[in-house]
Amino acid sequence: MKIGIDMGGTTTKIGIVSTEGKILYQTNIPTPFYPDIDDFIDALYDATIPMIEKVGFENIESIGAGCPNGNFYKGTIEHAANLPWKGIVPFAEKISNKFSGIPCRLTNDANAAALGEMKYGVAQNMKNFIMITLGTGVGSGIVIDGKLVYGHDGFAGELGHVKIVRGTEGRRCGCGQTGCLETYCSATGVVRSFIELSWKNQNTNTITSKDIFLLAQKGDPTAIEVFRRTGELLGQAFADFVCFSAPEAIILFGGLARSGDLLIKPIQQSMEENLLPQWKGKIKILTSKLNESDAAIIGASEI
Amino acid sequence: MKIGIDMGGTTTKIGIVSTEGKILYQTNIPTPFYPDIDDFIDALYDATIPMIEKVGFENIESIGAGCPNGNFYKGTIEHAANLPWKGIVPFAEKISNKFSGIPCRLTNDANAAALGEMKYGVAQNMKNFIMITLGTGVGSGIVIDGKLVYGHDGFAGELGHVKIVRGTEGRRCGCGQTGCLETYCSATGVVRSFIELSWKNQNTNTITSKDIFLLAQKGDPTAIEVFRRTGELLGQAFADFVCFSAPEAIILFGGLARSGDLLIKPIQQSMEENLLPQWKGKIKILTSKLNESDAAIIGASEI
Repeated sequence: MKIGIDMGGTTTKIGIVSTEGKILYQTNIPTPFYPDIDDFIDALYDATIPMIEKVGFENIESIGAGCPNGNFYKGTIEHAANLPWKGIVPFAEKISNKFSGIPCRLTNDANAAALGEMKYGVAQNMKNFIMITLGTGVGSGIVIDGKLVYGHDGFAGELGHVKIVRGTEGRRCGCGQTGCLETYCSATGVVRSFIELSWKNQNTNTITSKDIFLLAQKGDPTAIEVFRRTGELLGQAFADFVCFSAPEAIILFGGLARSGDLLIKPIQQSMEENLLPQWKGKIKILTSKLNESDAAIIGASEI
Repeated sequence: MKIGIDMGGTTTKIGIVSTEGKILYQTNIPTPFYPDIDDFIDALYDATIPMIEKVGFENIESIGAGCPNGNFYKGTIEHAANLPWKGIVPFAEKISNKFSGIPCRLTNDANAAALGEMKYGVAQNMKNFIMITLGTGVGSGIVIDGKLVYGHDGFAGELGHVKIVRGTEGRRCGCGQTGCLETYCSATGVVRSFIELSWKNQNTNTITSKDIFLLAQKGDPTAIEVFRRTGELLGQAFADFVCFSAPEAIILFGGLARSGDLLIKPIQQSMEENLLPQWKGKIKILTSKLNESDAAIIGASEI
């Protein structure tokens, strides 16, 4: 059995995962509640121990954590904007020490999701695919030849920050750049697009991407156009990604991925228009069928 | 000993490569002279046999070929625009049959160059790098974790066809798309840029990228601006590539790569401006030090 940790800016979920990839027990703790990383580790330990006792400490092989800005090579969380701990946190080492030496590995959350998808989801039997997470941001986990791509420094797979709009007219991104894919195609980007297109005709102060999805389902032309445009940009970006690694499929994961044809159809049309001839009609766009929360924990346990 | 074949649209070069990576003997045949692939194979065999006889047939381990549109998985050359043989050519199988069963593998020319660079060039000891060939077109060989990326279908690494100018205003590319990196940053692209900027003030009908380089060296402002703009676009593209595979270095190869600071400085400036914070100042831009013609033969022998 393994422990999987899915760390988010709001909540950190912890699960005991069976060798068959089932979550036997799970719990969670509020991430921002612990400004000191050691207090967080203590709280995580205290929350996990009762679950471990049910299955026996000696039966836990390893601990895996999907963390924002997680560095697989170093086991560190580095300069994560949405976490309370600044600088470089040696998270894997701290966890392993706290849990009496059980080995701990970590990677970023999109990579963890890709591992979950490869082991138990639509990417089973795939050796080359790209996982795109469409959440608050846009993340990615790239699998080549059956293995996650970590790159020279452990940070590979930041496809949310390729430039989809070049030059200074691109939207400002949290990373300091402009025109990043994430500024247009994340849940937040969809809201920005909707507000831009609405010209203040509607009260958009508190609108969410889910509200826009519901509006689109009801036939609201602005909301439909926002999804069309979002899909168009994603399709353009995907055609570039295919030039890189020629994947069998691109798999969408996260809240926006559940938008169905509203998003998938414009993605497919735009990607096909932009693909080289040898790839036209051959690259699958799939959506994850895994329960989002479970997949992150299960994927983390597979790191 | 191995045989390395570097197939180009004009000339096919064949070399006997020692186990130390030295070319012991080499020759070449004119590619377009043989509209029938079997005549070409016969000619290649006849040209190679005298070299093989000098080292002993029994000492040849394998044959590797770097070919335009070469598919590593299938050993085929597929729909190569600049070769006389149309459709799908089972090149590796034909070569192996002709050479009494010596195993033959092939891949595209940029991948072969990357292998040569990894074994004997500036990428020695590197496990993660991207080779960019700046020739008539823009090609690429991507190495991740010490291995070439072939992707699901064997065609990965077509970075000359990512879109550097999106929308319809991009230049028309031979691939059928518009705005591909290759239309701006290949030798041909540089000539197009120069002609665009020259406003017919100069006789540009027969100008080559090398002429433009020489003009720039003499201080011609239009030529200098062409290199600046070419480097700027390459730097933007490279920042996107880094998001994908976080390489240790991007290595330039081919005619334009010998332009020195005229091209390298704007590439570095533009890439740095577009990189995510964690990569700023950390990605090397290198130029191949291998003799271009030799590197292609030696790299091919390493497939």
